[in-house]
Amino acid sequence: MVNGERIERMRREMEPARLDALVLRLPENVLLLSGYWPMTGTAVLVFPRESEPVLIVPACFEAEARDMLWEARPAVYRYGLLDSPDPAVAVTDLFRECAAGKNWKRIGYEGSVDAMAPSWQSAEVLLPTERWPGSYRDAVPGCELVDASAMIRAEKQIKTEWEIGRLRIVAEISAMGLEIFERSVAPGISGVELVALVEREIMVRGTGRKGMRRVRGYAQVATGATETAIAYRMHEIFSRRPMAEGDIAVLELGVVADGFWADRTRVRVAGAATDEQYKVFETVRRAQAAAAAAVRPGITGGEVDEIARSVVRDAGYADSFPHITGHGLGFGYHEPAPKLAPGSPDVLVDGMVTSVEPGIYFAGMGGMRIEDDVVVTRDGAETLGPFRNQLCA
Amino acid sequence: MVNGERIERMRREMEPARLDALVLRLPENVLLLSGYWPMTGTAVLVFPRESEPVLIVPACFEAEARDMLWEARPAVYRYGLLDSPDPAVAVTDLFRECAAGKNWKRIGYEGSVDAMAPSWQSAEVLLPTERWPGSYRDAVPGCELVDASAMIRAEKQIKTEWEIGRLRIVAEISAMGLEIFERSVAPGISGVELVALVEREIMVRGTGRKGMRRVRGYAQVATGATETAIAYRMHEIFSRRPMAEGDIAVLELGVVADGFWADRTRVRVAGAATDEQYKVFETVRRAQAAAAAAVRPGITGGEVDEIARSVVRDAGYADSFPHITGHGLGFGYHEPAPKLAPGSPDVLVDGMVTSVEPGIYFAGMGGMRIEDDVVVTRDGAETLGPFRNQLCA
Repeated sequence: MVNGERIERMRREMEPARLDALVLRLPENVLLLSGYWPMTGTAVLVFPRESEPVLIVPACFEAEARDMLWEARPAVYRYGLLDSPDPAVAVTDLFRECAAGKNWKRIGYEGSVDAMAPSWQSAEVLLPTERWPGSYRDAVPGCELVDASAMIRAEKQIKTEWEIGRLRIVAEISAMGLEIFERSVAPGISGVELVALVEREIMVRGTGRKGMRRVRGYAQVATGATETAIAYRMHEIFSRRPMAEGDIAVLELGVVADGFWADRTRVRVAGAATDEQYKVFETVRRAQAAAAAAVRPGITGGEVDEIARSVVRDAGYADSFPHITGHGLGFGYHEPAPKLAPGSPDVLVDGMVTSVEPGIYFAGMGGMRIEDDVVVTRDGAETLGPFRNQLCA
Repeated sequence: MVNGERIERMRREMEPARLDALVLRLPENVLLLSGYWPMTGTAVLVFPRESEPVLIVPACFEAEARDMLWEARPAVYRYGLLDSPDPAVAVTDLFRECAAGKNWKRIGYEGSVDAMAPSWQSAEVLLPTERWPGSYRDAVPGCELVDASAMIRAEKQIKTEWEIGRLRIVAEISAMGLEIFERSVAPGISGVELVALVEREIMVRGTGRKGMRRVRGYAQVATGATETAIAYRMHEIFSRRPMAEGDIAVLELGVVADGFWADRTRVRVAGAATDEQYKVFETVRRAQAAAAAAVRPGITGGEVDEIARSVVRDAGYADSFPHITGHGLGFGYHEPAPKLAPGSPDVLVDGMVTSVEPGIYFAGMGGMRIEDDVVVTRDGAETLGPFRNQLCA
């Protein structure tokens, strides 16, 4: 079976935790254990330790679910039409049917969630309210409901071969966005036009790539010294100001393809760069390359961070690198581990995926960051979707 | 003050509910009562009944917050940088400072939330976990924490003049998307290209429009008979298949501008339409126009639905209109009330905003829907951002 390694690993973890089943609603967790990436937060995966998983899913998505599911059987309910039931009631009823006769004693659910993927089409998020755990309890009288969030989070840290294959594809797609950004930065173009160009390229060229069905880019472009000097934070305003000769543009790019994410950053100057811009760029490029090259099993996040940070420090920019060097990702744009940060004790392990993204920002010059995602391999690291770094034409 | 009507109305509501303060994290609720639309779910508005509101906000967004806030004072915390505190701890500490000496007895919070807007840039959502209410309770010992979700939801149903002004602007922007869709549907273009064109147009032309800072479109385009026959559901696959002569394209378009939403649908045929397509289109167009024209204070959602549905029924398509006629919106792409649906008892009131969106879908022909947003006025209704309906060139 596709990604059978993941299924087996999760079942092995459930044993010492004495969990008879998991009931999961976060789209990324449904994807993790079923192969189907839901459109909404009202698709629920029932994943028993010892029997067939069931995907409770709106009937209107049954065909796609059947297409993508590895082994789960879909159980559907009427959704979004006249006379559709309350999804909470419909899901609970189907869950009750799944649990009937199984004698489950302990069921894991996502009790403490800090981030959730939104509904694909509208960025609206359907959230589990406090009502849900209660309704699960009612559906399986006498069972104990256990918060399994931490266990699932830990399980997601180590990617399987199949998952890494998916991440290679989304990284390839992200490189299409980096490429059009590189080609388009020039005097006269605005930040908002660059955002729109990059997102369009990703959608038009990325959709269908190696079988990916749903592809979307989220671009942030800061331009000029003032904006790029704070380009380590989320960028609020898409500037309509045309770039001037010598302006820096920083592209921060999240891309999702069928539930798998890439997180990239490139920097470019419109026209010719100054000596100072070159010096900062070269420092960031060397810091990023050195840290990415240092990634291997056994090294800690703190050690990788220090490799990037020491390059920046030695070049005289110690105070201008105010953020961490990297974070986990894969099923989300950001995952909590591993963390590449000063003193981080997180030990890198074969199969982990992390961003590597040092940056330098200061008033006057502006800011620059370079970011790629790397997967920890048996004896080193692989950069996903490699793409060149060039400051100007 | 800008939108002082809203502030006063909310304070009046808090009195009978005996709420001394509200503590709000949903971006749309922070916007509702402060004027600032947060980038993340970790900006918290403390809104006392009798003293100055405080916006607890990441320091990196302080400048934008000061720009947009009506009367709240920003209280900032370090966020997203090296040595930043846990946001939950930082927010709770600042909340404790706000509450100090106030002797608040009952505090309202968002305890049951079904949908939440994601972080603007990445579609990632930061969620309040169960930890938060507990930490609020710790910050104000002895206070009672009350779920105020229903009260706030009800309060949001009736829009103020200022809010309707914002909705007019976002509707104008959405019409730019409808226009490029109309111009672009033709044999040879694919659904995915149409999506990308529409989203690009909205971002490039909409950003900065009448002062709107952050503008984004979410387009869904179904093409051809098979896809459009189910175009009442969220559309999963962006098709790369070039449209053929006579193919229908349905555009479902959500647009958000500084926190205010529009929800539109248009239908178009590539090349020349068949007689059957014309008949269905004319039926949908008449049903939509009749329902929109019937909107006025005092009519129920059920009555408006019946007006649309009877046009569809009289034309012989009774079984081909499987969804409701409309839903509330404004602070979200979808709001729970009013509901224009068979038997809906919701009484329309001056200041409510609803979509009006009948559709007809059946195998063979495909599907068509037309959707505009209307605001209930003192003696009728106003269509927001009016835009023509033409099936083909």
